[in-house]
Amino acid sequence: MLCSSCKNAQASLRLPYAPLSFCPACFKAFVERKVQRTVSKHGMVKGGDKIAIAVSGGKDSAVLLHILNKLYPSAEAVGIHLNLGIPKYSDECVKLASELFKLEGLSQVAIVDVKRCLGFSIGDLAQTRFRSKLCSPCGAVKRYALNRIAYEHGCVKLATGHNLDDTVATLWDLYVRGEVEQAVKLQPLTPSSHPKLVARIRPLIELTEFEVRMYALYEQLPILEAECPYAKNSKLLKRKSLISIVEKEYPDFKHTFLKSHVKRITPRLTLPEAKALSECEQCGMPTSSRVCSVCRLKAYAKT
Amino acid sequence: MLCSSCKNAQASLRLPYAPLSFCPACFKAFVERKVQRTVSKHGMVKGGDKIAIAVSGGKDSAVLLHILNKLYPSAEAVGIHLNLGIPKYSDECVKLASELFKLEGLSQVAIVDVKRCLGFSIGDLAQTRFRSKLCSPCGAVKRYALNRIAYEHGCVKLATGHNLDDTVATLWDLYVRGEVEQAVKLQPLTPSSHPKLVARIRPLIELTEFEVRMYALYEQLPILEAECPYAKNSKLLKRKSLISIVEKEYPDFKHTFLKSHVKRITPRLTLPEAKALSECEQCGMPTSSRVCSVCRLKAYAKT
Repeated sequence: MLCSSCKNAQASLRLPYAPLSFCPACFKAFVERKVQRTVSKHGMVKGGDKIAIAVSGGKDSAVLLHILNKLYPSAEAVGIHLNLGIPKYSDECVKLASELFKLEGLSQVAIVDVKRCLGFSIGDLAQTRFRSKLCSPCGAVKRYALNRIAYEHGCVKLATGHNLDDTVATLWDLYVRGEVEQAVKLQPLTPSSHPKLVARIRPLIELTEFEVRMYALYEQLPILEAECPYAKNSKLLKRKSLISIVEKEYPDFKHTFLKSHVKRITPRLTLPEAKALSECEQCGMPTSSRVCSVCRLKAYAKT
Repeated sequence: MLCSSCKNAQASLRLPYAPLSFCPACFKAFVERKVQRTVSKHGMVKGGDKIAIAVSGGKDSAVLLHILNKLYPSAEAVGIHLNLGIPKYSDECVKLASELFKLEGLSQVAIVDVKRCLGFSIGDLAQTRFRSKLCSPCGAVKRYALNRIAYEHGCVKLATGHNLDDTVATLWDLYVRGEVEQAVKLQPLTPSSHPKLVARIRPLIELTEFEVRMYALYEQLPILEAECPYAKNSKLLKRKSLISIVEKEYPDFKHTFLKSHVKRITPRLTLPEAKALSECEQCGMPTSSRVCSVCRLKAYAKT
């Protein structure tokens, strides 16, 4: 079959949700155009913005860094990698993230040891009562540390590699459980609501996991394919496998659902005014409580 | 295994979403209590209410009529069956509905020929351009005719047999497509918004399809098990099969989603004020257009 775009080269992949087949070169251009459209539609990147880019060692954030670097070469970017201290796994992640930063020629890079920064690692948390459900505290640690490092580097945006599949799996769960406040926060761009809270952007939010994976493959980006050893049986992975079952029957439902969430449902949701964020008594970072969730985790990790 | 309720008889079924096993007698009592709780929680039946009960010939509406008749023997009930004029299938439905009305000893019964009432049958529509997608116009015809007959009989409530699986399959689709106005209307009780529009109640909305099927079986209600010949490959059936896949992973997600929809999401949704309903120029029944959708269908059926 010929490529739907150049109508010249042999197509090497077919999109499951649209009647389009691409050769590798046209597929890469298609993915980049899709990201550019997402970024511009939601005003994610503005001239002069200093942008933090979270890089984990996995495919999503590798594609994120590569594409932003390619599309916005004049933007000031800071690559952030967190060494979470997960035995063996984190060493691999640090290695691959460093390799990617080098390949992309990033001049500002922060590879931060979570244990040095917070006093405990995810490996330490695995020794506590969180042992069997680490994904939720690990998520809190990552959000906290990425925001703090981005803020300390003077960034006004923090870009993460969440793709369409991640987003829809999470949204699906939030709607089923009626967690309206949290669903509303999950947007292509989440603005800052406190001077120390950096606005979050998700430039890959309209790319499917399949598109991200194929792009990373075609661009031969250095990535770790293994899942985190602590994430086995994680709720997100289970939800994502469900999403892929549903998708077989409704090939475009993920795109439709995200669009509905952003354009049709969110504008109709009226939420009680959010409590203004204060600063954590211990670390000074934004929180809705007296002590932020990460400082509370720190206390657990020590006991 | 012994029945979780009487702890005496042998259990003959197990609920997939809760650690409960029942013998037939305790299961029936459990289902009836569940319906009674739904009815009372949403104020569906009030003393003196004249209630229309839609009976199709299938399991859901048979269980609906049987349980309402048992729980509220003093309520004034009108059993309505529509003969949709679907070759062979409708004859079977009329036979089974009539048998049920007789068994239940209903004194007020309306078996209405849709063709005589509206001038065209669903069988006639199958000869038009709606041939391959009859479910949507058939749904409109049923809603219209049931409401009109209930109204003409002076009923203040119209009860239908929608179960939890039907409701969640529809809601899921409405949320995915962002059809917020329609989602908000799908409630255990939809109040009347026009003097000629009878309030809708869905007393089985918290019963799973499995519960309804087993109840009908244990009570040996006369029901047609065959699907409508025009509904093969219908979107609702496809969605319901998806729902049952998801359910295997999340056994209680249907209950959770319905509760979230009713209690957590709907109260937060702000909709533009609905246009007041007017009366159809041709039939006088409530509509948001000049001519109602069924009168427009009538025109198609004739061409």
